Amino acid sequence: MELGPGEEFDRIRAIARALGNRAADLGDDCAVLPSRPEALCVSTDTMVEDVHFRLDWLSLEEVGGRAVAAALSDLAAEGAVPAGVLANVVVPAGADRSAVPALMRGAGDSAAAAGTRVVGGNLARGDRGWTIAVTVLGWAARPVTRAGAAAGDRLWVTGTLGGSRAALQAWQRGDPPAPEARDAFAHPVPRLAAGRWLAEHGARAMLDVSDGLAGDAAHLAAASGVKLEIELDLVPVHPATIEEASRLGVAVQEFAAAGGEDYELLAAMPDAFGAAESREFERATGLALTRVGRVARGSGVRLTLAGHTRSLAGFDHFR
Amino acid sequence: MELGPGEEFDRIRAIARALGNRAADLGDDCAVLPSRPEALCVSTDTMVEDVHFRLDWLSLEEVGGRAVAAALSDLAAEGAVPAGVLANVVVPAGADRSAVPALMRGAGDSAAAAGTRVVGGNLARGDRGWTIAVTVLGWAARPVTRAGAAAGDRLWVTGTLGGSRAALQAWQRGDPPAPEARDAFAHPVPRLAAGRWLAEHGARAMLDVSDGLAGDAAHLAAASGVKLEIELDLVPVHPATIEEASRLGVAVQEFAAAGGEDYELLAAMPDAFGAAESREFERATGLALTRVGRVARGSGVRLTLAGHTRSLAGFDHFR
Repeated sequence: MELGPGEEFDRIRAIARALGNRAADLGDDCAVLPSRPEALCVSTDTMVEDVHFRLDWLSLEEVGGRAVAAALSDLAAEGAVPAGVLANVVVPAGADRSAVPALMRGAGDSAAAAGTRVVGGNLARGDRGWTIAVTVLGWAARPVTRAGAAAGDRLWVTGTLGGSRAALQAWQRGDPPAPEARDAFAHPVPRLAAGRWLAEHGARAMLDVSDGLAGDAAHLAAASGVKLEIELDLVPVHPATIEEASRLGVAVQEFAAAGGEDYELLAAMPDAFGAAESREFERATGLALTRVGRVARGSGVRLTLAGHTRSLAGFDHFR
Repeated sequence: MELGPGEEFDRIRAIARALGNRAADLGDDCAVLPSRPEALCVSTDTMVEDVHFRLDWLSLEEVGGRAVAAALSDLAAEGAVPAGVLANVVVPAGADRSAVPALMRGAGDSAAAAGTRVVGGNLARGDRGWTIAVTVLGWAARPVTRAGAAAGDRLWVTGTLGGSRAALQAWQRGDPPAPEARDAFAHPVPRLAAGRWLAEHGARAMLDVSDGLAGDAAHLAAASGVKLEIELDLVPVHPATIEEASRLGVAVQEFAAAGGEDYELLAAMPDAFGAAESREFERATGLALTRVGRVARGSGVRLTLAGHTRSLAGFDHFR
């Protein structure tokens, strides 16, 4: 679609050029997508400069990529196939002309890596600081909510936890993070194939642990009306957590379970799902799947380490 | 769905209470909506405090309502039926605990007035200032884009123009706006029924004139590859424009056509659509429909007043 005149549309033209085939036709009032028979899944997520990221930590391209990946992670947790990404960008006064295209290149790369495209968005001027609100659309034949876990189910976690927290802790101390910790924070990968695989193999409830395993487990427990029992000893830890946990003098599994910004999945699977199925998952997705606990009658979350009860808080955006 | 513990979820609980049946079940990773056979239409729009509104002009409830109405206007311009609203709110540090529920009550009222609900959203903390990014979902059997106008079509406008500009001009001068001008700015009504009626009656191209008739006509002209000829003498003006235009010493139609934040529709209808059809529209929607010009071969927009060519700019968010 040809765009009309004006500074705002010049900026949209620059974004369209930066995105190339990582964008659909932009510039109409609405993005229009063909319908599908599955349920429509939608999620939206915001990243605010100096709250969720700092530009001395990440490039604008990484900020855009991370915002889209974080939003897509919610589709992964539903077992959905992504169908499009909308990016709502508030641009600080005085931002360089190349800044928005750089941010959107990162957003487009994240969308393309997930097999989808940027289908729309909005640009607004702000007084200061970047805000990126990303909305993602997807389709799921059988959406997996947080609400289906039942006593007797087993709890499984994809990948490893704590990498982002390790990076954050180094930055906040004033040190450069270990490269693999920085990578975990700057380039999270939404677990879309993993989410779909788990949905197709009977997942009863699922969510991403973006607020930390301990905190998000409490949400799954509340939504499902059950109690979750997690053995911290079993939690798969990111390699970079070892040094950072020892600096705090806490067990590495506690450090990992209380970290936020990990975009791994926590799934409640039926009891019959076991070691053979997890190996099948690992072959299919290239990702580890680790059993970390079980679902019981009751409410809340019980965390244990070496048989002792532990109390951990998750990441809370308003704490 | 039962929500887990924590300050962030306490806030979501407060929003859910404020919204009542104006919200779907909140708290899962994704909003899940049943599919429909029509095309999916999605649009997203942002309102930034002190850029798009000021809290000495509007209450938080009005800010929320206006943000949702503005976003729904893009569905109206596509001829779509709304299916859900997502609100992404960045809350300034120090905001009162009742502030977000008030904002969301306004958002919920706007959604309910349009026959839809709040189906999801996101809360984030910001350093200062409110930002509300609203995403709207809808379904359209035949989405009307900006790109279908052809030479020989006639141009029609719903309602009246210039009311919001009249309010803005009064506020910027330090005066209270006339009540009907304030109402136009604070409580815009997305023209959903009008958009659907026009889509069903052959609209070839349509958009909302949120950036002003003059500016938005240029976008429709560019997208359709045509020239628009608009007779400003015909432009339907909001009553509050008369005083404000005379203060500037400009013709009231020029004042109205250059104003932004009017959420009326500009539609290119086939030549056969005439006075009888516009009366039928007015009976069906209770809204005026006024012919303001025609579509010709060429490019750009030609505005005339009493036979003389005039040059007007629209509202540009980056000018």
